Amino acid sequence: MTVLILTCEEDVTADMVVVHLNTAGVPVVRLDPADLPGGVALSGEYVHGSFRGHLSSAGRLVSVDGLRSVWVRRPGRPATRTAEPSAWLTEESSQALYGMLRGSRARWMNHPDAAQRARHKPWQLHLAQRCGLPVPATLITTFPQAARAFAERYPDLVVKSVSGTHPQDPPRAVPTSRVAPDADFAAVASGPTLLQRRIAKRADIRLTAVGDRLLAARRAAAPDAAGGPVDVRFDTSGTPWRPCEVPPRLAAGVRGFLREAELAYGAFDFVEDADGTWWFLECNQSGQFGFVEVDTGQPIARTIAEWLARPAAGQEAGVGEARSAAS
Amino acid sequence: MTVLILTCEEDVTADMVVVHLNTAGVPVVRLDPADLPGGVALSGEYVHGSFRGHLSSAGRLVSVDGLRSVWVRRPGRPATRTAEPSAWLTEESSQALYGMLRGSRARWMNHPDAAQRARHKPWQLHLAQRCGLPVPATLITTFPQAARAFAERYPDLVVKSVSGTHPQDPPRAVPTSRVAPDADFAAVASGPTLLQRRIAKRADIRLTAVGDRLLAARRAAAPDAAGGPVDVRFDTSGTPWRPCEVPPRLAAGVRGFLREAELAYGAFDFVEDADGTWWFLECNQSGQFGFVEVDTGQPIARTIAEWLARPAAGQEAGVGEARSAAS
Repeated sequence: MTVLILTCEEDVTADMVVVHLNTAGVPVVRLDPADLPGGVALSGEYVHGSFRGHLSSAGRLVSVDGLRSVWVRRPGRPATRTAEPSAWLTEESSQALYGMLRGSRARWMNHPDAAQRARHKPWQLHLAQRCGLPVPATLITTFPQAARAFAERYPDLVVKSVSGTHPQDPPRAVPTSRVAPDADFAAVASGPTLLQRRIAKRADIRLTAVGDRLLAARRAAAPDAAGGPVDVRFDTSGTPWRPCEVPPRLAAGVRGFLREAELAYGAFDFVEDADGTWWFLECNQSGQFGFVEVDTGQPIARTIAEWLARPAAGQEAGVGEARSAAS
Repeated sequence: MTVLILTCEEDVTADMVVVHLNTAGVPVVRLDPADLPGGVALSGEYVHGSFRGHLSSAGRLVSVDGLRSVWVRRPGRPATRTAEPSAWLTEESSQALYGMLRGSRARWMNHPDAAQRARHKPWQLHLAQRCGLPVPATLITTFPQAARAFAERYPDLVVKSVSGTHPQDPPRAVPTSRVAPDADFAAVASGPTLLQRRIAKRADIRLTAVGDRLLAARRAAAPDAAGGPVDVRFDTSGTPWRPCEVPPRLAAGVRGFLREAELAYGAFDFVEDADGTWWFLECNQSGQFGFVEVDTGQPIARTIAEWLARPAAGQEAGVGEARSAAS
């Protein structure tokens, strides 16, 4: 049973996981959907009520039935590195590849449906609330009057983009910014705007969830953090991440979130306030973990490898039966 | 409790359903996401662990909590009819709108996740097999040798696009075509190709599923059908659709398919062979039904209206409690 890794060629984070899988002797096929058709080929046959599918990459052939897990890391868009790319060929290749893989019994990190769902920030905030995670007061609106009323109730605000991307081309991350008290909210009518109460933080928390395992890291905010950058991604203080314990109630909330979201992997961002409360900011279902592992020494790559190496559901039953028969 | 219909302005099929909802006195808000922001506005507030959201369109305000169902008919892409459209604004508006609606307790026809999944033909074929629906022998491949071997086993073949779209711009439907016996399959390496055993049909079947209700229509093929167009969408014979019974085993298969696919609506295409077997071709989760209703008089629009009008899960419990209290 093989682990299938879908990612681009240069992905050192994937390399870290592959090393662990190789050490454990678990067969791995790694390919980039951008190379389909061409370096990557596929074939699936639906005959006499059953399906048999194969993928091939770099001369290796793997059966879809023989996949134990699929890791959707950073895959390229299908057919973008082919001889004559086109939007149509991308769609055809995407449907062929993911359509076949969706029919396999393999476990996904993360399933494409769950990944797509998890991209919706408003849905995340609502789910976090329902799971009992503290969520800073937030407004997403196109009504200027609603924005003004919210700013009166919560004068210390930050503004973010709803999707986490930037209007410029090529898109880049938009730093979360503080809102001036006398801001004019008329422009809110031109596009949905996310306003959020700013949490005076004493630390940033990155919680990496891999299956049931939660690995949290904490980075203390500089004493003058109130004047520094709000957005952790633009922090240049050089303060390292340190491993930390997850408060039990919070762990229960995070596990509930993952279960509801059907995510096997999630990188959660929290901020810790002066009372020690962790406030939920977001969960990135494809968030990087390399920098945390480097700083903290937490075995994230190994934990991912172990998750991927576990047998698929159907397989597991098979193993159980074999054991029963032997005992 | 309101029914929310997401569709473009000119949609006579939606009009048919709205008439029934109006007759039943069920509140309806109909809007096109293309008009957000602008004609459509939204606001959602996450405060003190709970969410309150609103949508407004044409001067009507509806609360997200007050939605009993959402019908995703033919919505425009968000923010495409706004003052300054951009890909970024479309993404922001899409996440804001669907992200909020995803948090509601409303019933969906169809949920965006289910709709997205159902667009994958290879996945459909596999699911149809698992549900016991007869599926014509099919191959999806980029291996010329696999295509040649399949054509030897099944000399009477048709070829389709995997995604159902055409390489031309603007995209249009590709007619399903017969494959010449001496076809050269070398080009299969340039793009995934779907080959399917041609079923000698005596009729086309359109089965429209609305919740648990299955409405089937049959159109007899012309006696010289073997020489006519293979693709029902390009049939100009003028033969009308007639209502027909659904064989019980097939009904069970279709219900299983809908359950697994989490679809509340599906337009299934089958072909009937000389033995009376219905062969599964595809399920279109947003398939048109107006032409079938016109030909057959089957109450599809009314059935959809009834499904949409049913109270949401949370509501239903509320009604039950009220009844218990009264009895």
